[in-house]
Amino acid sequence: MATGKLVPTVRTRWVVCALLLVEAHSCFCQQFSIPFQQPQTCETDQYFDISSLSCIQCGANQQANINGTACVCIAGYRLISNNSEPAISCKKCPDGQGVTQDNWNCITCTKLDPANGKCQCNSGEILVERNITGELLNEAKCERCAGKEPSLTVPNILGDRCVRCQETFISRTQSCACNARNVLVGGLCFPADLEGLPTTVLPIVNYETFSTSVSSAWFHYYLQGSAAACKIYSNLTACQALGNMCVMNMNSMSSIGNDACGLFRTIYLSTENLGIVHSVSFWRKNLPWLYYGKEPGLASRFLQSAPLPTKFSFKGAQQNTKLEFLAAKYDARGNFLSLQNIEGGVLQLCSDSTTRLNAAYSFGTTYQQNCTLPLSKILRDFPEPVFYDVYIAFNNADGERNLLAVPVQNLNLQYDGHFVNQDDIDSWFLTRRMFLVDTLSGRENSLTDQPRVIRVATKITIRITLASNTQQGNIFPPLIIVSYTAIAVQNLDTESVWVSFSVEYEMNKENAKVQTDIALGVLGGLAVLYSILKTASWKRRNGTAVIDLPAVFKFLLFYAGDLANVFFIVTVGTGLYWLIFFKGQQHVSVVLPLPSQEKSFVIYVGCAFGLKALQFLHMFMSQLAVDIFFIDWERPKGKILKSVEDGGGIKNQPIPVSIWRTYFVANEWNEIQTVRKISPHFQIFAVLFFLKVVGFENLALKDPSSSLARNSEDYMPPMDPILRYGLATAIWLVIGFIQIIFFVVVYERFVEDKIRQFVDLCSMSNISIIIMTNRCFGYYIHGRSVHGHADTNMEEMNTNLKREAENMCGQRGLLPNSDIQTFQISITNKMRQQYNRIHESLPRGTGPARLLPSSGNGFDQIIKVYHTMNKFLSSFIDHGHREMDYYVKDKLLFERIFDMEFMEPMDKSIFYNDEGHSFSDTLYYGNETTLLIFDTLFFCIVDLGAQDFVLAAVLTYLQQEIFRWFRCAVGRKNLASKTLVDERFLI
Amino acid sequence: MATGKLVPTVRTRWVVCALLLVEAHSCFCQQFSIPFQQPQTCETDQYFDISSLSCIQCGANQQANINGTACVCIAGYRLISNNSEPAISCKKCPDGQGVTQDNWNCITCTKLDPANGKCQCNSGEILVERNITGELLNEAKCERCAGKEPSLTVPNILGDRCVRCQETFISRTQSCACNARNVLVGGLCFPADLEGLPTTVLPIVNYETFSTSVSSAWFHYYLQGSAAACKIYSNLTACQALGNMCVMNMNSMSSIGNDACGLFRTIYLSTENLGIVHSVSFWRKNLPWLYYGKEPGLASRFLQSAPLPTKFSFKGAQQNTKLEFLAAKYDARGNFLSLQNIEGGVLQLCSDSTTRLNAAYSFGTTYQQNCTLPLSKILRDFPEPVFYDVYIAFNNADGERNLLAVPVQNLNLQYDGHFVNQDDIDSWFLTRRMFLVDTLSGRENSLTDQPRVIRVATKITIRITLASNTQQGNIFPPLIIVSYTAIAVQNLDTESVWVSFSVEYEMNKENAKVQTDIALGVLGGLAVLYSILKTASWKRRNGTAVIDLPAVFKFLLFYAGDLANVFFIVTVGTGLYWLIFFKGQQHVSVVLPLPSQEKSFVIYVGCAFGLKALQFLHMFMSQLAVDIFFIDWERPKGKILKSVEDGGGIKNQPIPVSIWRTYFVANEWNEIQTVRKISPHFQIFAVLFFLKVVGFENLALKDPSSSLARNSEDYMPPMDPILRYGLATAIWLVIGFIQIIFFVVVYERFVEDKIRQFVDLCSMSNISIIIMTNRCFGYYIHGRSVHGHADTNMEEMNTNLKREAENMCGQRGLLPNSDIQTFQISITNKMRQQYNRIHESLPRGTGPARLLPSSGNGFDQIIKVYHTMNKFLSSFIDHGHREMDYYVKDKLLFERIFDMEFMEPMDKSIFYNDEGHSFSDTLYYGNETTLLIFDTLFFCIVDLGAQDFVLAAVLTYLQQEIFRWFRCAVGRKNLASKTLVDERFLI
Repeated sequence: MATGKLVPTVRTRWVVCALLLVEAHSCFCQQFSIPFQQPQTCETDQYFDISSLSCIQCGANQQANINGTACVCIAGYRLISNNSEPAISCKKCPDGQGVTQDNWNCITCTKLDPANGKCQCNSGEILVERNITGELLNEAKCERCAGKEPSLTVPNILGDRCVRCQETFISRTQSCACNARNVLVGGLCFPADLEGLPTTVLPIVNYETFSTSVSSAWFHYYLQGSAAACKIYSNLTACQALGNMCVMNMNSMSSIGNDACGLFRTIYLSTENLGIVHSVSFWRKNLPWLYYGKEPGLASRFLQSAPLPTKFSFKGAQQNTKLEFLAAKYDARGNFLSLQNIEGGVLQLCSDSTTRLNAAYSFGTTYQQNCTLPLSKILRDFPEPVFYDVYIAFNNADGERNLLAVPVQNLNLQYDGHFVNQDDIDSWFLTRRMFLVDTLSGRENSLTDQPRVIRVATKITIRITLASNTQQGNIFPPLIIVSYTAIAVQNLDTESVWVSFSVEYEMNKENAKVQTDIALGVLGGLAVLYSILKTASWKRRNGTAVIDLPAVFKFLLFYAGDLANVFFIVTVGTGLYWLIFFKGQQHVSVVLPLPSQEKSFVIYVGCAFGLKALQFLHMFMSQLAVDIFFIDWERPKGKILKSVEDGGGIKNQPIPVSIWRTYFVANEWNEIQTVRKISPHFQIFAVLFFLKVVGFENLALKDPSSSLARNSEDYMPPMDPILRYGLATAIWLVIGFIQIIFFVVVYERFVEDKIRQFVDLCSMSNISIIIMTNRCFGYYIHGRSVHGHADTNMEEMNTNLKREAENMCGQRGLLPNSDIQTFQISITNKMRQQYNRIHESLPRGTGPARLLPSSGNGFDQIIKVYHTMNKFLSSFIDHGHREMDYYVKDKLLFERIFDMEFMEPMDKSIFYNDEGHSFSDTLYYGNETTLLIFDTLFFCIVDLGAQDFVLAAVLTYLQQEIFRWFRCAVGRKNLASKTLVDERFLI
Repeated sequence: MATGKLVPTVRTRWVVCALLLVEAHSCFCQQFSIPFQQPQTCETDQYFDISSLSCIQCGANQQANINGTACVCIAGYRLISNNSEPAISCKKCPDGQGVTQDNWNCITCTKLDPANGKCQCNSGEILVERNITGELLNEAKCERCAGKEPSLTVPNILGDRCVRCQETFISRTQSCACNARNVLVGGLCFPADLEGLPTTVLPIVNYETFSTSVSSAWFHYYLQGSAAACKIYSNLTACQALGNMCVMNMNSMSSIGNDACGLFRTIYLSTENLGIVHSVSFWRKNLPWLYYGKEPGLASRFLQSAPLPTKFSFKGAQQNTKLEFLAAKYDARGNFLSLQNIEGGVLQLCSDSTTRLNAAYSFGTTYQQNCTLPLSKILRDFPEPVFYDVYIAFNNADGERNLLAVPVQNLNLQYDGHFVNQDDIDSWFLTRRMFLVDTLSGRENSLTDQPRVIRVATKITIRITLASNTQQGNIFPPLIIVSYTAIAVQNLDTESVWVSFSVEYEMNKENAKVQTDIALGVLGGLAVLYSILKTASWKRRNGTAVIDLPAVFKFLLFYAGDLANVFFIVTVGTGLYWLIFFKGQQHVSVVLPLPSQEKSFVIYVGCAFGLKALQFLHMFMSQLAVDIFFIDWERPKGKILKSVEDGGGIKNQPIPVSIWRTYFVANEWNEIQTVRKISPHFQIFAVLFFLKVVGFENLALKDPSSSLARNSEDYMPPMDPILRYGLATAIWLVIGFIQIIFFVVVYERFVEDKIRQFVDLCSMSNISIIIMTNRCFGYYIHGRSVHGHADTNMEEMNTNLKREAENMCGQRGLLPNSDIQTFQISITNKMRQQYNRIHESLPRGTGPARLLPSSGNGFDQIIKVYHTMNKFLSSFIDHGHREMDYYVKDKLLFERIFDMEFMEPMDKSIFYNDEGHSFSDTLYYGNETTLLIFDTLFFCIVDLGAQDFVLAAVLTYLQQEIFRWFRCAVGRKNLASKTLVDERFLI
C-alpha cells in the first residue's frame, strides 16, 4: 500500500517542526488551518474555490458568476475554452457583435444590450440565434410570434421561443391579445365589466396594531386577478388564492367591498346557485370554506351541543388517547399542497424533539410550548405563508373515516371594526383557515423586497371540551384559538417574537361546583351544631351558664376548628376525586379544571389552613395555661434531732420528705408534653420519599398517564395544583394513619408506652396529679403508692416492686380493688374556690422569675402554699372534707361520644372513670388529629404556593420544631409556676 | 352588512335541528364533517377537488393528472377548452394524428408514441411542431441537430431544441460525437486510455456489517466519470463527487485500485505536481482533502501537541464559551452548498429546541443527545447525503479569522481490512469528510429505487481536549469520532435506528492522579503513626504493655478510623477542587474527568465510607460497654424505729436514704446518651433545602454555568458525580460546622447546656459518677453536695440553692477551693482489681433480665454489691484507702493534644483536671466529628449510587434513627447492669 507516498512530505516537515521546537506551539495550527473566506466575501473578480475554500483570482476579462463559485466572461467577451472548470478563457467579440446566449459565440445583433453584451429584442418578440437544427445564424433575428389563429403564440418567459398563449385570451378574443371589450388583469384576460366585480380593488393589508395599512405588492399583483378568475372562470386555485388573501387580512369584514374579504363575500353571495359542498351551508362549491355564519349563538350551539362519536379512553384494551388532527395545506397561490396529519410540529413554531411535539396530540395532556424566535429565522424558514384548514378525524357510525372541520376563533378578526371574537361566545364569528407566519403580504413594492410587516400566529390554543355527562370519553368539536401579532420589521438581527402553542381541556364544571357547595353547606351546618354543643360543654365545665362575650368568642374558636375540618374534608375529597377519577378513568368522563376554575379550590384550602391554624393555636394556648398540681402522699417517717438555725438550740424536727420524687415526676411530665402518636420527622421523610423518590409526584402531571416514572425525554406537562393537593394530603394522611396504627398497636404494646409509663411512675413515686383544664373540669391521676412509702432506698423499692409483682399488696386504683388510676373530674364550685383561694395566697405576679432563691420572702410563701395545697388536695382525695366530697362513676356512652358531662357537680364533685388516659388531651399526645391535619395543611399550603415538595417539607419541619420548642419552653414555665417545682429541675 | 345573506340557510336548518332533538347528537357532526379522501385514494378517472377535498369524476376521455388535482385528456385526445380549470373538454384527434406537446392541437406525426398519443423522434433528433415564429406546422418534423463545427449542437434533454453540446466533446473531437480514440464515460468525452485511470471500475459499496457488497447505481453512473473528469479535466465538482464516493465507502483503503477510494488515491498520487493547498501537505490542489497521513504517531502529535490560540473563559469580561464550528457542505454531486456554522442542529439528527441543540457548542458543557429515528423519516428527510468538512474557527495572532480543519476518526474505516481507528492512537488514520445519512449509495439498480441499505452516522462524538497545563483556556484541535451503522432496509414502517450525538471534554489528568496519590501516601503514613500512638495510649490505659492480638486488632481499628479520615480529606479535597476550579475558573484550565476517570474517585469514597463505618461501629460498641457507677454520698440522717419483718419485733434502723436521686441522675444520664452538638434532622433538612430548593444541585451539572437556577427550557447536561460529592460534602460540613458553632457559642451559653446541667445535677443530688472506659482509665464527675445533704424537702433544697447563690458555702470542686468537678482518671491496677472484685461478686450472667424482682436471690446480692461498691468508691475518693490513694494534677499540653497520659499510675491513681467535660467522649456528644463525617459519607454514598439527594436524605435519616434507637436501647441496658439501677426507672 502506498500510504508512504500519500504523505510524502510529512516526515521532513516533522523534522522541521521538531527542530523549531520553540515554534511548535503554532506549528500544526498553522499547518492545518486556512484563512476564513466565504463566497460572498470574495471580490467580484475572484471566484470561491470549492476545493480549497478560498478566493482565487479569475483570469483576464472574467468575473465571478452569480453564486461566486466559478468565473464567467465579462460582458462582451465570449468563452473560448472551459476545459477544467474554473479555468476558462475569454475573448472579446468584435465590435458591434454580441455574445450568444450560450456564451460561446459572437453574433451580430439587431440590438445590443450593453449591460450583458448580448442581443436583445423588444417585448413581444423572441430572439433567434440558431435555426431549428441548431445552426448558428450570422445575425441574431428578432421574430414576432404569430398571435392569431391558428398559431396563437406569444414569447415564452425567457423570450427565446413562441408558445401558445394563455387560454383566457384565446377564449375571449380568439387571439393572444386582450383587446376591445376585455381587460387584462393579473396576466389573464377578462370581460371589461369583470361580471360585476369592482374594477378597482384595494390592495392593502390592515394591521390592527399599526395605524397605517400596508399597500401589499402581493395583493396588488394577484388580488383582482384571483377574484376575477375565481368568479368568471371558477378557477379553483384562484379561489383558494383569493381566500388566502382574505385570511391574510384576518378575515375581517367591513362595509368595504373591494378588499380581499369584500371580494370574497361578493363572490360568495353571487355563487349561491353553484350549490354547496358536503351539505355544509357555508361551503360554496369551488370556493374555500372561510366562515361559519355570524348568527348569534351559532358558535355555542356548534361547540357545545353535539359530541364527536370518537371514544377516548385512558386505559385498558380500548385505550385511545390519540387526537388525530389533519390539515389541508395550501400555498399562497392557492395550490393544494397536501392533506396531512399535523403531528411532527406542523402547527408548532417552536422546534423540539418529535416525542415532545407529538405529546400535544395525546388526549388529556395539557400541553404548553413557547419560545422566542428571532425574526431572521422566521424570514428564512417561512418565505411564503402556508394556509391550513384543520380537521379532526373520526369514524362515523358506519365505521367510515370522516373529517370534522375544526373552527378557528381568530382573535384579530374585526367585524365592522369590532374584535367580535374577543367578546363573549354569542358574538363570535368563527372562521376556518389559519396560517402560522405571513411574510408575504407585508412586502410593499416588490415581492423580493424585505417585508415591512410580518404577521405571526403568536398564540395558538387548541381547546378541547369534554361532552357534558359523558361516560364514554366523547368530546365536543375542538376549537382553535389563534392570536396573530403584526411585527414591524426594522432590525432583523435583534428583533424576535415570543410564540406559544397550547392544548387545553375543559368541561362543564357547574355540577361539580354545585356538589361542592352542597357538601360545604351541609357539613358547615353540622359544624355549627357541634360547635354549639362544645360551647355548652365548655360553659358547664367552667361552672357558668350565661351567654357572655367569652362564650361567643369560644364558640367562634370551636366553630373555626370544625369549619376547618369541613373545608379539609371537602378539599381532600375534591382532590382525591380528581386524582382518582381523572387518572383512573378508563373511558374519559372528566378532565381537569382550568387554571381559572382552580381558584375557588385554592381559596377553600386557604380557609381550611387558616381556620385549622386558629384551632391549633387555640389548643396550643389552652395547653400552656392548664392548672396542675403534684400531690405528694409521702409523710415524714418520723422525727429527728436537728439544730435549728433561728433558735440556735436543738429541736425535734420531722424527717424531711425528699422532694426528689416530685422532681422526677415533674421532669417526666415535662418530657411527655410534646410526645406524639407519630414521629413527625419520619412522617415528613416518608412523604418526601413517596412523592419525590418513588415518583408519586408524577401523578399530578396534567396528562393521562398513571406511571410513576417519567422519561426525561418525554414532554413534561405542567403540574395540576388540585392533583398535587390531593396527592400530598392522601400520602400524608395514609402515612400518618399507618404510623398511628403502628404506634398504638405495636409500639405502645411491645416497646414503650410513655403515657402508661408515666401513670405507673406516679404510683411508684407515691404522687398523684390533678390537672384542671377548665374552672371546674380536669383530670386526676391517682398515684398513691400501695406500699405507703416510696421515699426509700433501693432495697425497699425493689422489695415493693417484687411484692406488687407477686400480688402481695392492694391494687393501685383510687377505689378499693380497682385498677383505675385516671379520672376525669367535675369539681364543685366550692372546691374550686378553695383551690383558688390557696393559690391566690401566692405573692402577686408569681412567675418563674420569682422562684429564684434570691427572692426570699416570696419563696417562703411558695413553700407554705405548696404544703397547704398538698394537704388540702390530699385530704380532698381522702374524703377528708365533708363539704367537699366526691364520688366516682362511669361516664355514659353519649357523654363519652360528645366528650361532655350531663350531670352538674352540685354538692359533690364527680370523678369519672377514664381508662383511656384522656388527660393526654392536655398534651400533644391527645391531639394528634389536629396536629396531623395542621401539618398536612401547612405542607400543602407551602406546596401550593411554591410548587416544591422539598421546600414544603423543610418548612413543615421548621414549623413543627418551632412550635414544639415553644410548647416545651412555655409549658415548662407553666409547670414550674403551677406545681411550684423549681424550673431548674425540669431538664 | 350582509352576513345574514352569507348564511341564508342556517336559521331554517336550525329549526330542523331543534325539531329533530333526538337526532341532535349527530346533527352538527354530520353537517360539518366530510368523508376522508386524499389525492392518492381517488380513482384514476377522478380528480381531487382542492376546494371540497373530495374525489370528483373527470369528464369523458379524461383522467387525473400526475398529482391528482386536475384532469387531463387521455392519450390521443386534445384539449378543446379549459376555462374553469378542472372542467376541461377533450376531443379525439383524427386517426394517425398525434396531439401536440401543448395538448391543444392535433398534428400529423412521422412517428406516433402510442403511450401518450404524441409524436416522437429517434434519439439524436428533435421534434419540431411549430416553426420559429410559433406557427403550427401541418406535420411534425424530426430534425437532426447540426453536430459539426461551427454549430456543434445536440438535442436538449426535452428533445425539442438543438443546443451546444458538452465542452469535452468539442475539445476532444471538435464535434459533438465522442468517437475514435475517445471514450464516452458518464456523459463526458475522455481520451480512450483515460490517462492511466483504470478502464473498468468497481461500482460497489462495502457494508462492514453485511457479508455482501451492494452494487450501487450511483457509483455505476458517476464513479468512473467523476474520476476521469477530475483527473483529466481537473473538474472541481467531479473531484468532490469522487471524494464523496470514497467517503460513502468509509474512506476504506485496500489494495484494490479501482474502487472509489482507490481511484481517489490514484489521482491523488498522480497530481503531486499540481501542488498543495494552504500548505497542508495532504491537501492536493483541486482535490478534496480526505485523509491525514497514515504515519504512526501523527494523530497523537497533531491532536496533543499544539493548542489553538483561542482562549476560552467561563466568566468575567472576556467570557468566551462559544465553540465556533463551521462546516463546508457539499452535495453528493460535488456541488458546494455553503460554509456555515453548525449551530441549529446541522450535525444533530435528533430534533430539539434550538436552545438545547446549540448547548452542544457551549464550551465546557458535556452534551449528550440521543433518540430513535424511524427509517421512514430518515428516508423522507435525507433523500440525498450531504457531506461536511468541519472546521473550527479561531483568530490567529494577527487577529485574522482562520479555520482549523477538524479531523474525523471514522471508526468504520478499514485499512487493508483492519479497523485501524478502533485500535490505539498510533495506528489511527484520521480523515476529514463525513456525512450523516447516506440513502444514495445503497440504491442498487436505479436511483429512484428504494435503497437496499442505508448508512447512518449513529454515534457522533466531538472530543475536545484541553491543552496540558494551560492557564488560558487553550484547547488542542478537537476530534470528531464517527461511528456509522449500515441498516438493511426491509420494512420502512417498523424499522428504526438509535442515534446519538455527544460532546465530551478531556484533559491529561496524570498530574491530578499523581497528586492524589502523593496526598494519600503522605497522609496515610501519618495515619499509621497516629494510630500507633493511639494504640500505645490504649495499651497504657488498659494497664498492659505486651503487643498481643487484641492490640494488633485495636491498632487496625484505630488505623481504619484514621485512614477513613485520610480518604475523606482527599476525596473532599478533590471534589472541592473540581467544584471550585471547574466552576469558578475564569480562564479555563481544567475540565471534568471523564466517566472512566471517575472510577478511582468512587473507589476512594467507598473506602472512606467503609472505614468510617468501621470506626463508627467501634466507637458505638465501646460506648455500649463502658463501666459506670453512681456514688451516693448521702448518709442516713439518723435512725428510726421500724418493725422488721423477719424478726417480727421492732428495731432501731437507720433512716433509708432515698434512691430517687440516683434514679433521677441515672435517668438524666440515660437521656444525654445521644445528645449531639448538632440537630441531625435540621442538618438533613438544611442540606436538602440548599441542594434542592435553593438549587445548589445545579452546580453539579457538567457545564460552565455557576447559576443556581436553571430554566426548564435549557439543555440539562448530565450530573457529574465528583461535583455532586464535592457539593454535598461541602454543604453538609458547612452546615454542620455552623450548627456546632451556633450550639457551642450561642445555644449552650444562653439556652441550655445539657452536659453542664448534668454536672450541676450531680452536685445538687449529692451523687458522684465514675465512668471507666478502659481497664485503668476513665472519668470522674465529682458531685458531692457542698451542703452535705440533698435528700431533703423542697424547703431545704431551695435554701441550699440560695446559700450557694449567695456564696455562703464551699465550692463544688473535688479539691478544696476548686471548682473543677470533672476529671480524667488513671487508676492503679490494684484499685481496678478491687473494683472488679466487688463487681464480680454479682451473680454470673448478670443482665437486665436478672434485675427482675422475681429473681430474689440475685437481687439481694445486687443490693449488697451496690452498697459495697458505693462504700468502697466513696472512701476511695475520700482518700480512705492508704494503699489506693490518688492525687490530682493538670494534664501536660502534649498529653492533652494527643489525648494520652505520659505517667503511669504506679502507686497512686492520678486524677487529671478536666474542665472540658471530656467524659462526654463516652456519649454521642463528644464524638460529633465521627458522627458528622459518617453521616456525610452515608449521604454521599447513597447519592453516588442513586443520584438522588432526596433518597439520600431519607436513608440518612433512617440510618440515624436506627443507630440512635439501638444506642439508646442497649445503652440503657448497659447502664442498668453497670449501675445496678432498675431499668424500669430509666424512662
